[in-house]
Amino acid sequence: MSAFDDLLAFQRQTEALSAVAERLGWDQETVMPRGATEQRAEELAAIEAVLHERRTDPRLGEWLDAARPQNEVEERITQLVARDFHRASKIPARLATELARVTSLSQGIWADARAKEAPEDFLPTLHDVLALKREEAAALAEGGDLYDALLNDYEPGATQAEISALFDAMRPRLVALREDILGTEFRPKGLTGDFPQETQLRLARTCATAFGYDWSRGRMDLAVHPFSSGRWQDSRITTRVVETDPFNCLYSAIHETGHSSYELGIDEDYAFTPLGRGVSMGAHESQSRIYENQMGRGRAFTGWLHQRMTDAFDGIEIDNPDDFYATVNRVTPGYIRTESDEVQYNLHIMLRFDLERDLVSGRLGVEDLVEAWNARFLKDFGVAVDRPAHGVLQDVHWAVGLFGYFPTYALGNVYAGCLNTAMREAVPDLDASLARGDAAPGIEWLRENMQRHGGLYEPRELIERATGASVSEKPLLDYLEAKFSDIYRL
Amino acid sequence: MSAFDDLLAFQRQTEALSAVAERLGWDQETVMPRGATEQRAEELAAIEAVLHERRTDPRLGEWLDAARPQNEVEERITQLVARDFHRASKIPARLATELARVTSLSQGIWADARAKEAPEDFLPTLHDVLALKREEAAALAEGGDLYDALLNDYEPGATQAEISALFDAMRPRLVALREDILGTEFRPKGLTGDFPQETQLRLARTCATAFGYDWSRGRMDLAVHPFSSGRWQDSRITTRVVETDPFNCLYSAIHETGHSSYELGIDEDYAFTPLGRGVSMGAHESQSRIYENQMGRGRAFTGWLHQRMTDAFDGIEIDNPDDFYATVNRVTPGYIRTESDEVQYNLHIMLRFDLERDLVSGRLGVEDLVEAWNARFLKDFGVAVDRPAHGVLQDVHWAVGLFGYFPTYALGNVYAGCLNTAMREAVPDLDASLARGDAAPGIEWLRENMQRHGGLYEPRELIERATGASVSEKPLLDYLEAKFSDIYRL
Repeated sequence: MSAFDDLLAFQRQTEALSAVAERLGWDQETVMPRGATEQRAEELAAIEAVLHERRTDPRLGEWLDAARPQNEVEERITQLVARDFHRASKIPARLATELARVTSLSQGIWADARAKEAPEDFLPTLHDVLALKREEAAALAEGGDLYDALLNDYEPGATQAEISALFDAMRPRLVALREDILGTEFRPKGLTGDFPQETQLRLARTCATAFGYDWSRGRMDLAVHPFSSGRWQDSRITTRVVETDPFNCLYSAIHETGHSSYELGIDEDYAFTPLGRGVSMGAHESQSRIYENQMGRGRAFTGWLHQRMTDAFDGIEIDNPDDFYATVNRVTPGYIRTESDEVQYNLHIMLRFDLERDLVSGRLGVEDLVEAWNARFLKDFGVAVDRPAHGVLQDVHWAVGLFGYFPTYALGNVYAGCLNTAMREAVPDLDASLARGDAAPGIEWLRENMQRHGGLYEPRELIERATGASVSEKPLLDYLEAKFSDIYRL
Repeated sequence: MSAFDDLLAFQRQTEALSAVAERLGWDQETVMPRGATEQRAEELAAIEAVLHERRTDPRLGEWLDAARPQNEVEERITQLVARDFHRASKIPARLATELARVTSLSQGIWADARAKEAPEDFLPTLHDVLALKREEAAALAEGGDLYDALLNDYEPGATQAEISALFDAMRPRLVALREDILGTEFRPKGLTGDFPQETQLRLARTCATAFGYDWSRGRMDLAVHPFSSGRWQDSRITTRVVETDPFNCLYSAIHETGHSSYELGIDEDYAFTPLGRGVSMGAHESQSRIYENQMGRGRAFTGWLHQRMTDAFDGIEIDNPDDFYATVNRVTPGYIRTESDEVQYNLHIMLRFDLERDLVSGRLGVEDLVEAWNARFLKDFGVAVDRPAHGVLQDVHWAVGLFGYFPTYALGNVYAGCLNTAMREAVPDLDASLARGDAAPGIEWLRENMQRHGGLYEPRELIERATGASVSEKPLLDYLEAKFSDIYRL
């Protein structure tokens, strides 16, 4: 066996164990008995300890030194293993294990605090999580920028400077579009009524199928906060049901189908290697967004969905597909990021990006977070937060230590804008197919040009290879202005 | 930290990882997408490799040498870790990993072969599994008896000689009772009709609740072959639904509740130690059996169940509780072990015990197994096996390498007989409570006298401490003769 073969065999088991840890996370969020939280924290800490030991195994260093990769794929595998090895080697085992344990428990504490509208029950835990993450960031950054060190876990190569510049370029056009929309008289109707859980879930399955979800390698369950989980032969989606708002369930299912289909679309030769997963959170989010928004909330697909919903719910209040299209895309002031429309969504992200940079740098203390959130929300959205679950308690991310993650959502939107332009050019009849409830032509283009490559290219290079153009916010903003000018007759 | 503390801290992580492996097994049998079998095999092999490495870690040997346990509990923990260390040290890592991988895959091959009634699709795999298990047995036995080496994994301290003697003592009285029953004219009615899945599952939950199942630390799902899984804060049960036979679903649920409640009843101080699980498969089966049979199929509980089923299914064909009691306990010739009555069940076990001893010793080759099974079945039960799924393909055990496991079922019946005698004496009003659908007084006795001890005592000592008498087949046989003489008016 060559050093590269040894490396690959060792990595194969590490990848399998990491998939196990992810599967335990899925279990915890979907089916685990509520009394098992402490046990699960111990289990996750134990598996994290094993993973950490493997990621810092001195033999990896020796194999990496001796490996002579023979082609592009082997070179990239070597590069990614080395990156992970050098990263993990900076983190003490105690810290890795403690982070796994604390963030497994903090999730339940956050959920309870949110249900009770009691930020004071959660902030001490957030304080502990943030302290551990700052310790991790300091170890990773080695004197460099703390926030960039965390951001790089989710979006390799990205910097806060680059993202700040991107957001600065986006903000004026988004704010102007939002003001134009809210300044018109036109107010699309909201959908009211009672939509039974079973029917919503049946329709959600139909939607996932329309977007090509491979049920032989996945399944759909309920979760408080929808997510997708897993890779290779087993990538599962979740959704949630609000009986007064079926769009929540249906578009969560389509969004998570985008994530899972990316994983399932990767070249199967890359399974159990570092190439066998989505290359970054931004790349991931580009898929969930282009499924959900550019395809799922387009006029063609909503026409089909209108008919399906009318059939399934025995008629709905909105009987015209054009009105329905406006309803799906209506822009209203709202507190919740995940329920936001395409125009305002990125403004929610910018708020979190600025606050979490201040938390990580220490400029903002956890004890002042609620006040800071509420002040910024009022400034950006013109309304006061009415209760904590609509404010700082709405997202699970910080609770589980995901600092540096939020900007990848907006980056995903930017990537989706770029991909959509190229996809529409390459697949001119996509809307005709979407109008029949079949996203296959678009998905085939995405799979061929992006998904199958897994981790082979860095995120920006991946998007630029797929689109043949530099990454820019312009396609997204052009798309949003065109779409919403049409709907709102601006 | 003392050597014992080091040992305990290390073992804690090993126990957590072993619970993870069990949770993956549950996932595979209940919710895993069907296309994920190869990936799951890799995952289980990876975690088994880690577990094997930990179980044979040289530091364990050093800590064991240096440990100075301070009390009975610490002594027993040290003893059990040492037993596991010495056992694992005899197995090469390659063999441990290969067994995990092959037996994860073989389960699916067995299931497909059973569905297709095609033993020839399964026997080559069984051949491989058996070869690996014989290799394992030879490594463990170190020149001693191969079968005993395997048996000891499931029932520490038991030998095939002892079990042979027990079975020899049981067989004549069981055969005589069976012949007496089948020789009478009386034939209790079977229950026919169509029993919807949802109603069966609702009733199964009611039954599990009647037997004290702690839903905050468990859940119930469907599985092809019902099982229970997990410990401490998370022990889950499964059942199956046959729409023409509701007893299958209900008594599987009660049986698995017995297994899970044993795990959940163990002193919580023992969690994440080798004391924190049922001490043997025989001890485990004693709990599932006493829940299912001595309590669940008694006249008192079936009276209550009769009313519940009558209500749930809007009337059933049998309207008299006495007739219903006879129906629940009717003895008919049948092929399937898991559907067998209490009288014939142990005869099914004896058949498997003899065949698997011959397989392990090499006296019987896999290529001759179908013929040997069918000949023996005809001899013991007086009917010819009509199809492979009713014969050698009915059980999953050999497919997944569980050679030496079957006799623990009969041993569990024997233990349950002993426990029942003591429990009835200590809890004279148990039947009055069971007649109200509440097994709590019996379960409290079992928890206090047996379940809470976990792995603290060896199986035989555990039963003898609980009952104040030597383990013997006599209480079981006396109970069976009395019960069935009454039902069949012998």
